[in-house]
Amino acid sequence: MSDVLQLTCDLISRMSVTPDDAGCQALIAERLQAAGFTCEHLRYGAVDNLWATHGTEGPTLVLLGHTDVVPPGPREAWSSDPFVPEVRDGVLYGRGAADMKGSVAAFVVAAEAFVAVHPEHPGRLALLLTSDEEGDAIDGVRRVARTFAEREERLDWCVTGEPSSTAVLGDLLRVGRRGSLTGSLVVRGIQGHVAYPDKARNPVHEAAPALAELVARQWDSGYETFPPTSLQISNIEAGTGASNVIPGELRVLFNLRYNPHWDAVRLEQECERMLRSHGLDFRVDWHRSGEPFHTPEGKLRSVAREVLAAHAGKAPEESTGGGTSDARFIAPLGAQCIEVGPVNASIHQVDEHVRLADLEALPGLYLTLIERLLLSDGAA
Amino acid sequence: MSDVLQLTCDLISRMSVTPDDAGCQALIAERLQAAGFTCEHLRYGAVDNLWATHGTEGPTLVLLGHTDVVPPGPREAWSSDPFVPEVRDGVLYGRGAADMKGSVAAFVVAAEAFVAVHPEHPGRLALLLTSDEEGDAIDGVRRVARTFAEREERLDWCVTGEPSSTAVLGDLLRVGRRGSLTGSLVVRGIQGHVAYPDKARNPVHEAAPALAELVARQWDSGYETFPPTSLQISNIEAGTGASNVIPGELRVLFNLRYNPHWDAVRLEQECERMLRSHGLDFRVDWHRSGEPFHTPEGKLRSVAREVLAAHAGKAPEESTGGGTSDARFIAPLGAQCIEVGPVNASIHQVDEHVRLADLEALPGLYLTLIERLLLSDGAA
Ligand SMILES: [Zn+2]
Ligand SMILES: [Zn+2]
Repeated sequence: MSDVLQLTCDLISRMSVTPDDAGCQALIAERLQAAGFTCEHLRYGAVDNLWATHGTEGPTLVLLGHTDVVPPGPREAWSSDPFVPEVRDGVLYGRGAADMKGSVAAFVVAAEAFVAVHPEHPGRLALLLTSDEEGDAIDGVRRVARTFAEREERLDWCVTGEPSSTAVLGDLLRVGRRGSLTGSLVVRGIQGHVAYPDKARNPVHEAAPALAELVARQWDSGYETFPPTSLQISNIEAGTGASNVIPGELRVLFNLRYNPHWDAVRLEQECERMLRSHGLDFRVDWHRSGEPFHTPEGKLRSVAREVLAAHAGKAPEESTGGGTSDARFIAPLGAQCIEVGPVNASIHQVDEHVRLADLEALPGLYLTLIERLLLSDGAA
Repeated sequence: MSDVLQLTCDLISRMSVTPDDAGCQALIAERLQAAGFTCEHLRYGAVDNLWATHGTEGPTLVLLGHTDVVPPGPREAWSSDPFVPEVRDGVLYGRGAADMKGSVAAFVVAAEAFVAVHPEHPGRLALLLTSDEEGDAIDGVRRVARTFAEREERLDWCVTGEPSSTAVLGDLLRVGRRGSLTGSLVVRGIQGHVAYPDKARNPVHEAAPALAELVARQWDSGYETFPPTSLQISNIEAGTGASNVIPGELRVLFNLRYNPHWDAVRLEQECERMLRSHGLDFRVDWHRSGEPFHTPEGKLRSVAREVLAAHAGKAPEESTGGGTSDARFIAPLGAQCIEVGPVNASIHQVDEHVRLADLEALPGLYLTLIERLLLSDGAA
């Protein structure tokens, strides 16, 4: 059994459902320490974070990952126990196999190999792991990034191991993520009886044209490789259940996924302006889940493109689609960020899996990235 | 203590919360039978209905009422026990005092007085009481009216004792009611993740412009004394609570209160046409709570107007506003219908009450109505 497969299995066996690390980071820290890394455990609340570095001078490359997994759901739905890794027909099954214990194991194997061959390498190689990527992400990388900002930690490049590939390993290079902003809207009216509409003010009626305008709006037509900014109403609710009562209040939850045309402040102002223009008596509470990030053409992107093309046989699609990742917290520190990982088709689902061939190719892929970034000249 | 006050108190003491009659109708039937009325008990499901008649020839005048009351809510909220009638400062307090045990008692006292003085009166005097006016009204007057239709019962005039007065007894004569129609709308979309709107179809987004059009529509500008037809959304609901999920379905409950410009069938067609024109994948289930009724100028209205004017000192407002009443089920049988009862300010509330002076004036008022209708010539 290969080293990366063994370590991935050891990690899958640990039931590290967010925010419980379940000993994954201790296992990794032990190996990295033995390899010469300096390990710092940053525990915030119920969340474990591990910061392991090798080297002190020059540009820093961070390998960013998470040890937590989403809950597996009912055991019966799985073909085999989600926390008992099992190889069938060249495929490794288990919760976290693809998202992202396989990548984390590959990071470790690649990092060990790199420092074994280049003990005096220029630059600094770092691993940052958290046990709260799939949850609130409050005490995970968001919190670590605040600590890093305070102590003026300099980070140049960040490679996240999120499962970015779509059909074959290396077919997609993620070079940015949209920002996410959630608005919790309350529109106030005056409750009453449907037989006496003149004595009431129906907040659903008052809000209807405003919501129609809000969802029809074209925010932009995209930004470089980013898809257009999109607003989605996820929840709407008014009424007591009775058919003869005009409700006194309407509650709407909506989410914006936005590209670098926008920032949270301007989107909030724009939404509130539209709501005000309809004369609504309203209030919005905003939750900013992360500004967008975008890594323009530069050393990180070009090196990654070449490494993935060499593996997959053709240049990867360079994309900014998809959900959010912890790279959103590292990017504001000034680091260029990309995401490179296995095929994501099965993540967060039953029978999550990774192809053994892909898993065993990952350490070499990451190792080449590390070498090309740290052993060549300059961070530009 | 006057006869009408005593009987009202006896009725209030019976906790006849819908659909429980709690012995009210038995008490009344005993008195009416003693006065020479023929009593028929029509029990459907859990609902008691009483049909008492005196006389057999000529036009029929029905006094229509209900013995059930709405629940009183918490005892502590009341100044005195809602089911222990209490007179304070010339006002009788208790659940049902105004809606409508006072009117029912006055019906009985007036009917007894009328047949005592005119034992051989022309026409037919009838009382129809139900214990399900405040509830679903399935097995109450709706059901009785079906029985009447089957046996071709001829009804000419109907006086409902609903509390119609607004400030002083007799200031308002209700000569019609709007119809009520409830639509339960489900708009189907495709559930998905807010980060991938292209893979989902948000039913809230698709419905928003349709709902905006529906609530903005002017259905008509009123009909004689009827207010304009009005649509109110009473409930709206979509979403799982999660802010990152595009809901798969939107549910909307709305109610139309409509005047005789419309009937239920045409309103349903019109609403569905508007929804279809927006390309929605939807379904509406309709609940018809009653077509509108309207009593045009004629003997019943003119007699009632004169009787109320004589009592109140000026002609009553003639109105078609307000909610629904059981008259909606009697009107389709071909009867002219009006509503005449005490002041409605406290109905369905804590400390429901009726002024003693009003309560004691009611039997005389109803008696005059009976005399003017049955003792003069013709039903026109
Ligand atoms: Zn992940
Ligand atoms: Zn009533």
